[in-house]
Amino acid sequence: MAGISRRGLLGGGAALAATGAAAGIAVGGYALGRESEDAAVDAASDTYPFRGTHQAGIVTPAQDRLHFAAFDVTTDDRQALVDLLVQWTAAAERMTQGLDAGPVGAVDGPYNVPPDDTGEAIGLPAGGLTITFGFGPGLFEKDGVDRFGLADRRPAALRDLPHFPADVLDRNRSGGDLCIQACAQDPQVAVHAIRNLARIGFGTVAVRWSQLGFGRTSSTSTSQETPRNLFGFKDGTANVKAEETAELEEQVWVQPEDDGGDWLAGGSYLVARRTNMTIEVWDRQPLADQEGFIGRTKGTGAPLSGGDEFTEPDFSMPGSNDQPVIPVDSHVAVVHPSAHGGARMLRRGYNFVDGTDDLGGLNAGLFFIAFVRDPDTQFIPVQQAMSRNDTLMEYLKFTGSALFAVPGGVGEGEHVGQALFA
Amino acid sequence: MAGISRRGLLGGGAALAATGAAAGIAVGGYALGRESEDAAVDAASDTYPFRGTHQAGIVTPAQDRLHFAAFDVTTDDRQALVDLLVQWTAAAERMTQGLDAGPVGAVDGPYNVPPDDTGEAIGLPAGGLTITFGFGPGLFEKDGVDRFGLADRRPAALRDLPHFPADVLDRNRSGGDLCIQACAQDPQVAVHAIRNLARIGFGTVAVRWSQLGFGRTSSTSTSQETPRNLFGFKDGTANVKAEETAELEEQVWVQPEDDGGDWLAGGSYLVARRTNMTIEVWDRQPLADQEGFIGRTKGTGAPLSGGDEFTEPDFSMPGSNDQPVIPVDSHVAVVHPSAHGGARMLRRGYNFVDGTDDLGGLNAGLFFIAFVRDPDTQFIPVQQAMSRNDTLMEYLKFTGSALFAVPGGVGEGEHVGQALFA
Repeated sequence: MAGISRRGLLGGGAALAATGAAAGIAVGGYALGRESEDAAVDAASDTYPFRGTHQAGIVTPAQDRLHFAAFDVTTDDRQALVDLLVQWTAAAERMTQGLDAGPVGAVDGPYNVPPDDTGEAIGLPAGGLTITFGFGPGLFEKDGVDRFGLADRRPAALRDLPHFPADVLDRNRSGGDLCIQACAQDPQVAVHAIRNLARIGFGTVAVRWSQLGFGRTSSTSTSQETPRNLFGFKDGTANVKAEETAELEEQVWVQPEDDGGDWLAGGSYLVARRTNMTIEVWDRQPLADQEGFIGRTKGTGAPLSGGDEFTEPDFSMPGSNDQPVIPVDSHVAVVHPSAHGGARMLRRGYNFVDGTDDLGGLNAGLFFIAFVRDPDTQFIPVQQAMSRNDTLMEYLKFTGSALFAVPGGVGEGEHVGQALFA
Repeated sequence: MAGISRRGLLGGGAALAATGAAAGIAVGGYALGRESEDAAVDAASDTYPFRGTHQAGIVTPAQDRLHFAAFDVTTDDRQALVDLLVQWTAAAERMTQGLDAGPVGAVDGPYNVPPDDTGEAIGLPAGGLTITFGFGPGLFEKDGVDRFGLADRRPAALRDLPHFPADVLDRNRSGGDLCIQACAQDPQVAVHAIRNLARIGFGTVAVRWSQLGFGRTSSTSTSQETPRNLFGFKDGTANVKAEETAELEEQVWVQPEDDGGDWLAGGSYLVARRTNMTIEVWDRQPLADQEGFIGRTKGTGAPLSGGDEFTEPDFSMPGSNDQPVIPVDSHVAVVHPSAHGGARMLRRGYNFVDGTDDLGGLNAGLFFIAFVRDPDTQFIPVQQAMSRNDTLMEYLKFTGSALFAVPGGVGEGEHVGQALFA
């Protein structure tokens, strides 16, 4: 962690403390790691260790802002790809600690070469930045070609997601050989991270698509309040939380005995779905209808069967007209774990507004991100059930889709995904 | 200011205090208003009065986040337009005070009608929200038709900006009959404001384009640090600041004797220019070249002739090869007030990243906003000089463009733009 602080804000003490914490975490098993201890802390000056048992940015308390990018690998040279992962690891570790992307820095010269940091984050604190890397199916095989000798390492679940009803996918917002999720309290910090990693990757990768999110739509810690999506409802109430350590092992972390567990253990699958909401139509629905679509009250987020936000829904409680008070086609009824063999997700999505659509409305919605141990049992059936039965679908349109395998944490001296390339 | 607080955070006392401040400001002449007193305050719980001598959101200390929207008016009914301005005024005032957009609120029913607030800002503080309205040329005359009987009220300067070199304008990101600039510390608060105003306008206006900005690129108060744009440089060092009261009258506020001063006095012109930066190419330029393009050092922002950020550039100081140390084709040399008869702007732009371009890069840049008393003397000549002489132009591409007249402040009992429709 040598080098010049980009910020002038981080003293050596803080940097050393962070390094120490990172070193400490690396010796754990599949335990939760430092993130749970930090759940209540989300100050702009926060730093999370880059190295650890799991990659940061999954159970880390969900930061407010996102910049997500998917990349195509533009080389067939395995060593060039590995070299990039080594460089990305070094730069990502530096930036998460509030340092410039490279050891020279943005502004101190030498003057006859491009700086190794782009400079727009000078003066900004680390901002709770986490950087999380994932590998798409195309890294293992693309158009029938095994470019990097990885085809036999591909877990069966790591393949393009099937077509779902209401998928009107933009190819330029879907897929990708690699992904990087940057989350921070300050969007400029997240953008700076993606931009510098893309800069470092020039010639080896090209940005395929990228997405900014401005408001987190899930909590990943019981210490966080449940935020609201652009339907105006609390979202992610039933999320798997960092404090549920047994559930994390069951639902989120790939285990050594799982398919691909030889390199993916301690990792997870990241499902990304760009979900447009027709908010203008939604906004003209009566409050009772909105609550019926969701199956929860808009104010407190309590299920329509009563209680508070975290009360379990009672799907058998009768309502009017001999129908359950929670409609059977409501979102909560359709996606509830009880309808899917107990399957849950760790969701980490963000609200987005990307200008306007062609109809005089906002191009707005939810950039859905979920981490699951097995997309075949925890995501695909839930999405299919939504497509078939969920009245909310009338207000949703999926415009982007991707699946990535997120390798486990990066140990000291290692690079991201080292076990895959070993 | 009756009604239910959307947030449960604002007590009656805070709301009363803000209202009192607004009432106090309304009796001033063309003095600065409350904003200058608040220059140092930018907490998330901040509220700025909506009513006053000038519209808020101009000299107000620049907030961190932007949502800007331009609208087409879809009716020919003058009264419908006035009614909308009345409704917008009421909703904007409420939201800037941390309240729901309407008096009923998002979640408390009645259940058989759509709520008068969309709900996604529940629990969020006012966030320093300002909402600023502007009128485009199309409001006065469109395709030769004087839809609203306003044609003879149009100041000569309020017309489509001329075509500039490097303009590759997207029609869907340009123009508009009306605009709303929403600035806040929290993007969800800014998005909520635009979304609810668009909702209220349904049937009378349609969103033509909208733009999110994540990082302010100018300071509007001497108490704010100069932020950085995506070139990594400090931006807006020479901005007109709220504390320069005489300069505001000279450079920003339309005066009663100006063209259109009968309704526009105390207002300003808002120039919007969506400026794409080819950051991937920029990032490969040596530091010395980057500094030469800008004419300032990347670290401190000092002019290349020396001193600190706020030292006046010395354009005659010799450098090497008998050339000035500040290149004559550097950005600071080309746009400096000394080259434009002393013309300055109050800039209030934001960084943006809107996904990717077609070349494997980020669709990124600066959403330039400037407020000027007269675009014909303070903006157009400066943009033309940039086009002709500025080496920075190699890294810029203008993809959106619009000009609006921003009427003066809204007094008690008035609606936005009342003097225009009187």
